[in-house]
Amino acid sequence: MGNIFSDRISDVPRSFIREILKLTADESIISFAGGLPNRDLFPLDEIKKAANKVLDTAGRDVLQYSTSEGYWKLRKWIAERYESKGIIVAPENILITSGSQQGFDLLGKTLLNEGDKIIIEEPAYLGAIQTFSIYRSKFFPIPLTMNGIDTDILKKITTEENIKLFYCVPNFQNPGGISYSINNRNIIASLLKNKDTLIIEDNPYGELRFLGEEKPSFYQLIPENTVLLGSFSKIVAPSFRIGWIVAKPEIMEKLIIAKQASDLHTNYFGQRIIFQYLNDNNIDEHISKIRQAYGKQRDVMIDAIRENFPEEVQYTQPEGGMFLWVTLPEGLSAMEVFQQAIEKKVAFVPGDPFYVNKKDVPTMRLNFSSVDEDTIRIGIKRLGEVLKSMLS
Amino acid sequence: MGNIFSDRISDVPRSFIREILKLTADESIISFAGGLPNRDLFPLDEIKKAANKVLDTAGRDVLQYSTSEGYWKLRKWIAERYESKGIIVAPENILITSGSQQGFDLLGKTLLNEGDKIIIEEPAYLGAIQTFSIYRSKFFPIPLTMNGIDTDILKKITTEENIKLFYCVPNFQNPGGISYSINNRNIIASLLKNKDTLIIEDNPYGELRFLGEEKPSFYQLIPENTVLLGSFSKIVAPSFRIGWIVAKPEIMEKLIIAKQASDLHTNYFGQRIIFQYLNDNNIDEHISKIRQAYGKQRDVMIDAIRENFPEEVQYTQPEGGMFLWVTLPEGLSAMEVFQQAIEKKVAFVPGDPFYVNKKDVPTMRLNFSSVDEDTIRIGIKRLGEVLKSMLS
Repeated sequence: MGNIFSDRISDVPRSFIREILKLTADESIISFAGGLPNRDLFPLDEIKKAANKVLDTAGRDVLQYSTSEGYWKLRKWIAERYESKGIIVAPENILITSGSQQGFDLLGKTLLNEGDKIIIEEPAYLGAIQTFSIYRSKFFPIPLTMNGIDTDILKKITTEENIKLFYCVPNFQNPGGISYSINNRNIIASLLKNKDTLIIEDNPYGELRFLGEEKPSFYQLIPENTVLLGSFSKIVAPSFRIGWIVAKPEIMEKLIIAKQASDLHTNYFGQRIIFQYLNDNNIDEHISKIRQAYGKQRDVMIDAIRENFPEEVQYTQPEGGMFLWVTLPEGLSAMEVFQQAIEKKVAFVPGDPFYVNKKDVPTMRLNFSSVDEDTIRIGIKRLGEVLKSMLS
Repeated sequence: MGNIFSDRISDVPRSFIREILKLTADESIISFAGGLPNRDLFPLDEIKKAANKVLDTAGRDVLQYSTSEGYWKLRKWIAERYESKGIIVAPENILITSGSQQGFDLLGKTLLNEGDKIIIEEPAYLGAIQTFSIYRSKFFPIPLTMNGIDTDILKKITTEENIKLFYCVPNFQNPGGISYSINNRNIIASLLKNKDTLIIEDNPYGELRFLGEEKPSFYQLIPENTVLLGSFSKIVAPSFRIGWIVAKPEIMEKLIIAKQASDLHTNYFGQRIIFQYLNDNNIDEHISKIRQAYGKQRDVMIDAIRENFPEEVQYTQPEGGMFLWVTLPEGLSAMEVFQQAIEKKVAFVPGDPFYVNKKDVPTMRLNFSSVDEDTIRIGIKRLGEVLKSMLS
């Protein structure tokens, strides 16, 4: 047979992260490459209780097909959680998705024509880049600063171009580890007000703050222009693949059609278990444990970096989330560092896959959530040695 | 904001089935409209045991992120099941999907450019029509006969047109209830051999045969041209949303990229439960129970139709699956029958949504799997009265 593939898939390269994860399957390698939550914190016993309770009380109903919108009680729980944070959302405006990744896909399907223009952060979350690439959008990356995106560039781009979407992770960004300041959020909101640009506000890590103050959501600042994405992957467990989209009714209607066409509905047993778990336990106490652990792991990593990395290497100091972003002196390719690091049995993600039009960048992502404190110290020491030898 | 939607989603109408299901939420209505398996047959106790065993033995690992390809042991189980039926498939060539519906989406994403030509059955499964519509393919419907598709028309179309895909449900078709004869399959295989047309062979009901002999799969007849879809929804339970695609390595590689971009991976706890269930129980015994029950329900429905429907009404006599297809005298719109039937508290799906370019067709789908025998008798009697009064 000849070439049978669609143009959209032919344009998307193999995932570099997948290749890295293959390399790091070697257990002697200390890996800061993953994006995994700390498995030791998963509420195993509580999930087991919840699963049994669901099967005992709802019986065979939890094994049947269910609605495309998602389990009503779970949607209501999410709405109430938002309300407790001062964000008003009707449960009807919440669609349960098979993880946030499906959120990107449904939004791409519903909103993007080929060539539609989309602003992303630079560096940007690669799962979103991959999905929006499939819908053949045109990317306008805006560099991240320590306080958010560069709003001068935002102003310029939104004046010159007809921008359909602005995709962002304002809290503890992946991969950058930075958060948008209140001022930065306000400027962005005022620049986009009364424009046809829709903000895709992706907030998987928002609950994982271990330092600083909570900031207002774009959904609060300009609700008309904002679609909000959330997930249980980082606060309960990722294996269930349960996230959600908050969107106004006109968009919801189209998203539901796209959801039906994509997988009919998100696995229902998982939705029921997550709801039962949330209903029967104190999620704030659980989140507080995760925050403490990740905060400690982050501190250990920063201390180890301070001690072991050459002085000219810069890094972000995240107030939450799971990632820290390292910038090497200009001219040093993180990809080359990666090759040498693997030989010293330590791994990370070189910056390249987080950019849409740059190669051999001098940046890298380190994950601190899935590695224990002692291992972080050893791994950062190894990485420091590699960097010192390459910079000397 | 102006019109922000993509062309692809603007073209897809609201699902008519969703509207019907809303009407039939009224519990006094007997519904043959659904496409649900019989909930009484779900192996609840066994699923509960499997869930607990998975949590007890694998612990927190089942709550973590997993691979895009799916759980290896489940893929291996599927490969061995095929082998037991004489179909040779390597586990590496099996991708676990979030139900067969996601299979359509991944194949659309991977294979279809706008305007690509795709042959479907007439009538066709509407979930597939919906997804392939989103990828803006051009449909060539080929009428179903009692023995498969009309191969004269297939020959004509494949000679005149460059057809990318042929989507079919050769066993106990939804909605038609018919199966392709061996002869029909052989003719189709010989017509498509050495052509660039890929067969999407969707087989969700294949295991649910209560009459007749098993027929060879297109995957056996022309493996090079065939992608095979399967599902646990009808033989275990649908709520987990677990299906699979069998495809050759070149296609698998692209499907995995599409899978990653669509939802990273199918819910892992569900995959583990299904595998544990399959491993610890005799699935053939369970399937045999489903076959017996559905076979009995089908017989009851056919007997009731024979007794209650006007003579000029025709219907298929399925050898398996969940559906029976009714053809009314030409000129009678099943949509009008539907309106009157609802008043008499009985529902079905009028044929319209199963066609891409016809309206007010005189055909309708009846589901016999999700309604008990006594209720089938009452419902068919009511429907017979409606038909008699409309035809008199």
